[in-house]
Amino acid sequence: MLDPEGKAIKKSLQKVGFEDVEDARVGKQIKLRLKAESKEEVRSEVDKMCKKILANPVIHQYNIKVEGI
Amino acid sequence: MLDPEGKAIKKSLQKVGFEDVEDARVGKQIKLRLKAESKEEVRSEVDKMCKKILANPVIHQYNIKVEGI
Repeated sequence: MLDPEGKAIKKSLQKVGFEDVEDARVGKQIKLRLKAESKEEVRSEVDKMCKKILANPVIHQYNIKVEGI
Repeated sequence: MLDPEGKAIKKSLQKVGFEDVEDARVGKQIKLRLKAESKEEVRSEVDKMCKKILANPVIHQYNIKVEGI
């Protein structure tokens, strides 16, 4: 998966002296709070949201983490 | 902390039928792989990177998670 921003971050870190950086990957984190009856319901609702508008399956990979029910 | 992108995501989700969404927050996730002797060394190096170029303390909050040593 192409990640130009990650490459740019790696280069700038190395340029300012952090030579131990071997790789950098950039992603977006979206934290949602929603009303639901169970973790399974949250997971399936958020998956629908990803498929419908939050993620473009051609260029994005996404994973869902459910907390606090 | 202002989060216009989070507000926009919440509104669009509610508009396409996900009324149970109460809040949405957007953040950037940067995954770094670097050579180091210990978790403490990784944490302190990454904190220096954040202070030097990765984060703007006026508008950003950041937290560091260390994995896999």
